[in-house]
Amino acid sequence: MRLRFWIVNVGLLILGVLVGAWFLSPTSQDQVGAQDPLRGVMQARNLSLDDALAALRTYTPTGVPDEYIMFASGGHSGHVLVVGLPSMRILKVIAVFAPESWQGYAVGHRETEEILKAGGKEITWGDVHHPALSETQGDYDGQFLFVNDKANGRVAVIDLRDFKTKQIVKNPLIYSNHCSAFVTPNTEYIAEAPQYSMPYPVGTYAPLEQYKEKYRGPITFWKFDRTKGRIVPEQSFAIELPPYWHDLCDAGKRVSYGWAFCNSFNTEMAVPNILQMKMPLEATTARNEMDYLHVINWKAAEKLVQEGKYETVAGMKLIRLATAVQAGVLYLIPEPKSPHGVDVSPDGGYVVVAGKLDPHATVYSFQKIQEAIQKGLVEGKDPYGVPILKFDATKAAQVELGLGPLHTQFDDKGYAYTSLFLDSAVVKWSLGEPYFKGDKAWKVVDKVPVHYNIGHLTAVHGDTVRPRGKFLVALNKWSIDRFAPVGPLHPQNFQLIDISGEKMQRLYDLPIPIGEPHYAQIIERSLLKPFEVYPQVGFDPIKMAADPAHTVQPGKERIERKGNTVEVWMTAIRSTYTPDRIEVNQGDRVIIHLTNLERTRDATHGLAIAAYNVNLSVDPGENATVEFIADKPGVYPFYCTEFCSALHLEMAGYLLVKPRTQAMK
Amino acid sequence: MRLRFWIVNVGLLILGVLVGAWFLSPTSQDQVGAQDPLRGVMQARNLSLDDALAALRTYTPTGVPDEYIMFASGGHSGHVLVVGLPSMRILKVIAVFAPESWQGYAVGHRETEEILKAGGKEITWGDVHHPALSETQGDYDGQFLFVNDKANGRVAVIDLRDFKTKQIVKNPLIYSNHCSAFVTPNTEYIAEAPQYSMPYPVGTYAPLEQYKEKYRGPITFWKFDRTKGRIVPEQSFAIELPPYWHDLCDAGKRVSYGWAFCNSFNTEMAVPNILQMKMPLEATTARNEMDYLHVINWKAAEKLVQEGKYETVAGMKLIRLATAVQAGVLYLIPEPKSPHGVDVSPDGGYVVVAGKLDPHATVYSFQKIQEAIQKGLVEGKDPYGVPILKFDATKAAQVELGLGPLHTQFDDKGYAYTSLFLDSAVVKWSLGEPYFKGDKAWKVVDKVPVHYNIGHLTAVHGDTVRPRGKFLVALNKWSIDRFAPVGPLHPQNFQLIDISGEKMQRLYDLPIPIGEPHYAQIIERSLLKPFEVYPQVGFDPIKMAADPAHTVQPGKERIERKGNTVEVWMTAIRSTYTPDRIEVNQGDRVIIHLTNLERTRDATHGLAIAAYNVNLSVDPGENATVEFIADKPGVYPFYCTEFCSALHLEMAGYLLVKPRTQAMK
Repeated sequence: MRLRFWIVNVGLLILGVLVGAWFLSPTSQDQVGAQDPLRGVMQARNLSLDDALAALRTYTPTGVPDEYIMFASGGHSGHVLVVGLPSMRILKVIAVFAPESWQGYAVGHRETEEILKAGGKEITWGDVHHPALSETQGDYDGQFLFVNDKANGRVAVIDLRDFKTKQIVKNPLIYSNHCSAFVTPNTEYIAEAPQYSMPYPVGTYAPLEQYKEKYRGPITFWKFDRTKGRIVPEQSFAIELPPYWHDLCDAGKRVSYGWAFCNSFNTEMAVPNILQMKMPLEATTARNEMDYLHVINWKAAEKLVQEGKYETVAGMKLIRLATAVQAGVLYLIPEPKSPHGVDVSPDGGYVVVAGKLDPHATVYSFQKIQEAIQKGLVEGKDPYGVPILKFDATKAAQVELGLGPLHTQFDDKGYAYTSLFLDSAVVKWSLGEPYFKGDKAWKVVDKVPVHYNIGHLTAVHGDTVRPRGKFLVALNKWSIDRFAPVGPLHPQNFQLIDISGEKMQRLYDLPIPIGEPHYAQIIERSLLKPFEVYPQVGFDPIKMAADPAHTVQPGKERIERKGNTVEVWMTAIRSTYTPDRIEVNQGDRVIIHLTNLERTRDATHGLAIAAYNVNLSVDPGENATVEFIADKPGVYPFYCTEFCSALHLEMAGYLLVKPRTQAMK
Repeated sequence: MRLRFWIVNVGLLILGVLVGAWFLSPTSQDQVGAQDPLRGVMQARNLSLDDALAALRTYTPTGVPDEYIMFASGGHSGHVLVVGLPSMRILKVIAVFAPESWQGYAVGHRETEEILKAGGKEITWGDVHHPALSETQGDYDGQFLFVNDKANGRVAVIDLRDFKTKQIVKNPLIYSNHCSAFVTPNTEYIAEAPQYSMPYPVGTYAPLEQYKEKYRGPITFWKFDRTKGRIVPEQSFAIELPPYWHDLCDAGKRVSYGWAFCNSFNTEMAVPNILQMKMPLEATTARNEMDYLHVINWKAAEKLVQEGKYETVAGMKLIRLATAVQAGVLYLIPEPKSPHGVDVSPDGGYVVVAGKLDPHATVYSFQKIQEAIQKGLVEGKDPYGVPILKFDATKAAQVELGLGPLHTQFDDKGYAYTSLFLDSAVVKWSLGEPYFKGDKAWKVVDKVPVHYNIGHLTAVHGDTVRPRGKFLVALNKWSIDRFAPVGPLHPQNFQLIDISGEKMQRLYDLPIPIGEPHYAQIIERSLLKPFEVYPQVGFDPIKMAADPAHTVQPGKERIERKGNTVEVWMTAIRSTYTPDRIEVNQGDRVIIHLTNLERTRDATHGLAIAAYNVNLSVDPGENATVEFIADKPGVYPFYCTEFCSALHLEMAGYLLVKPRTQAMK
């Protein structure tokens, strides 16, 4: 009886457990639960849990803005890419060094064609390497973006109120400004040094046999006027450097404010001559075990300029090498083999150099550098008389990271992240004091593979005085098999990595559909305050102010002829041009002033003119001007290239060019 | 005893249920299960279940290729966008009508500069509207892509083996070819008609007062030679059409093979004159209740050409209006108010017209059209003698869809999907027989809002004889508040919609960072067979074959001078140019033949020359040529613009241009 009693009870208990288990089992949840559909999709699409987590960490629903904005160089597309994080969607391509007709940039638009002419009006492309956001006290302020054109030695200014290029300056001394753009902590200057030294000013000829005597690698400090939003060439200066090949630079910050640090390679001063020597530059420029870190006191250089201790070369104030050395503006420090990246820690106390043919990060102490300078701890001078500070006297640490270390970024917890080109990996390691003490310092703590051949990497505010941590992006040079094939020219590959935890986690692969990005910077979106529509009708994006003289008022549209010049005062509003008929004679100069009368966000209008290579893009409230010679007779439709309403296709007109003689007809 | 027995048993049963329930409850699963981390991220990022499902349906892990490839017009960027589905990542921007230096397209590269010169070498942009994939028996075959340049009246051919532009042809008769590109079912022809009629050939002047007499809107059928991969102008022809404004066309298929259907508006033949008339074209072109659908028998037109019944105008075989009418090549049918899209159903039996100022889709029956032609059911002729078929005799149905219907796509279940511009929505509706019978036919079954102002929409193989269903993409003109703000010029917005179920489900918002896409086509990736690397060293992408004459063999690199011409035979391989030093005299003609010796996927090399506006992009195995006059004296570094190895920065050299006189120095 008792036995049977317990058998039944235990039996019922087990039955109950099973019933209860069944009740909440996956199969039963199918009917009720909200979780299983997720598992169903994961199974159907063969997604691992990590995949699913990555999907949920990056997916950004409609109408939800991304938390961070990345400005990435567009490499040899000449453009800049604007990417939202964590969704990794490319939000905009900003045209900088190449005409871009969607934006109406330098395709008939008079003002932007003027901007692009800097450096020669025949130059229609650029090679953007290193974007630099404007800084206030060493942190991004969200006001301006600066980028370089390595191919032609130019620097551009982009205003982040409207995400448009405002200025391009051509360096009169150099080309190949790989070391650019980087800014000083309050955007006093944008610096630029050449990769491949050359005789200057540009256009100067000197045979390679005179390389050591006549070639030089000056670093230029372009003065930036924040209120004007422009570089001021007259207030800029350059410092002559030896003809080594200059790689990246970084500005000192906090304790090292006022200083700059530049890598160099080819301190062998080898020159190309493979047909005769049968030796490639790869070999001849990489013989020395040590190259030179350049330590530059730009504050002292600024003082030299104020004291008039410069020569003017092709309009640029140039501090000669001897003057710089004598004034303590320039020092060298040995650095291991063919370095690439140099990055200053958030507190300004460390200078991290990655030698691409050396497995270590070499970390210099700014304090030790200063002591070495004061105590004269030099091991000699280079052939140009520049004092060489002792390596051991300035070194803080050397950390073995892996093969092909290139660049370093920082987080908010005292860790450094370095890209390893040959290992195709990102390595996370700890800095020394004040971040980590004793044997916690200078330690590799994590490593994650990336696909493939990483160049730069970038973290949220990762090169400022206040890194935010959270995300890091690996800028990979090769994608090979990562994406659906699109021909022999493969996209690059950006990989988003979560760095909020101890272990790095890869979240997302973004193919780069145009250009080869080199460096990028990531800013908190809340720091950007762009116009979503221009503040008033008649706004001139170049002046960044209203321009009554060129604003066409509704009702005042007209066509005025003065001799052979026909001036058209035109307005655009959904979906009509006024006037919509332009009749001129062959050979007339035609000037069209166009005002977009719209006040609605996104109500941009275009103006395309057949066969005359004109496409304007005129945002709500914006003024634009096009000027051309009507040298082709015939009938040329013009129309709006931004779909603006249901009757957008009716937003059109005709340009009629009457031939000089009817015989031409 | 019995009572107590049952109380205990029932109690234990309940306890068991609770234990079992607890055991599989979410809380207990936290310790073991794989689901809760997902829920955690959903909560942390405030994602709804629909958001999470959309994330999992679109997220595509590293190394997993997308299932579908979308080719989207780049609008007035002049480019084409290649997008992977379902991840909605832009995989490549293909340069077509504008130079693009990343691809080395027409920035010093001799062969592509030649391609771009079609239509005038001063033209450096285009307005791409309607991509058309090559078809075999009415379905995409993945071999070629055709796109138009509306601004300048051009059509381009892209070879999908390497995703590069191979040919651009300029139409000698017209500009503004909005109705282009669309292909006949076996890619016999690529058709092109002008939006804004004009006197022809291009360059002909006629005042707008002579609009009705001298302006016309011919439709051109460009002959395509599939084996050559080229359009053959000599085998192409055009048919003269009245000077209405032609909108989209579509080719008949299956039962309607051999026919084409083109919308038109401004049958009022209004001309722009707002300054005098105070009436915008928006009003004057939209007075008529009915415009005309053009029904064109291109097979019969082909026969007329074979019979020599054409005139040659500016090199184009032109069938005059009277000839076309007399031969039964051209008919008109009334269509409601300012139509925009015309789309033929997969079986070829229906022609769907969306009148942007009419809330209906008007569906014509091809069979009824043929009967009306045979029985002469005409209601008169237009001013140009074109017979007008009776509306009621040809109509199959009118389906009320909503405000501003524009374009229609189809799925694999007999449903049509139409974009509603004014409603900002996509509406799903049923076709008639053979798809649906009786009151199941011609019914709206679902509607989903999109953000905002949708123009075209595109479904997987959605305009072919065999639509695949699954996905649809809404090409929205405005994004306004959908993304993080990037200035007054907002991106467009592609929205991915799942159409596999009864109800449409929005999955993903993709901002378009460059250009305004108009139309796009989506193909199964498996149908594309691109080269991932060119098949051999010395490959010429224009010829799509090896080119021994211009291939530089390793060891045979050299520099040859003939008079004032310096010919450089150069190779590139990681990371060396041979030769790496080019010395010329000012004024010399410099020709560089460059062969990329690599066989590794993604081992592309660039060649940038400072100040000479040259950037080549040379894929593994590829040959390229640059030719320029060395008119600027001085020293010009050249270097590789594709990061190719750890010593990529050493892949460089110098071009030295010796001045005519040392005085110039």
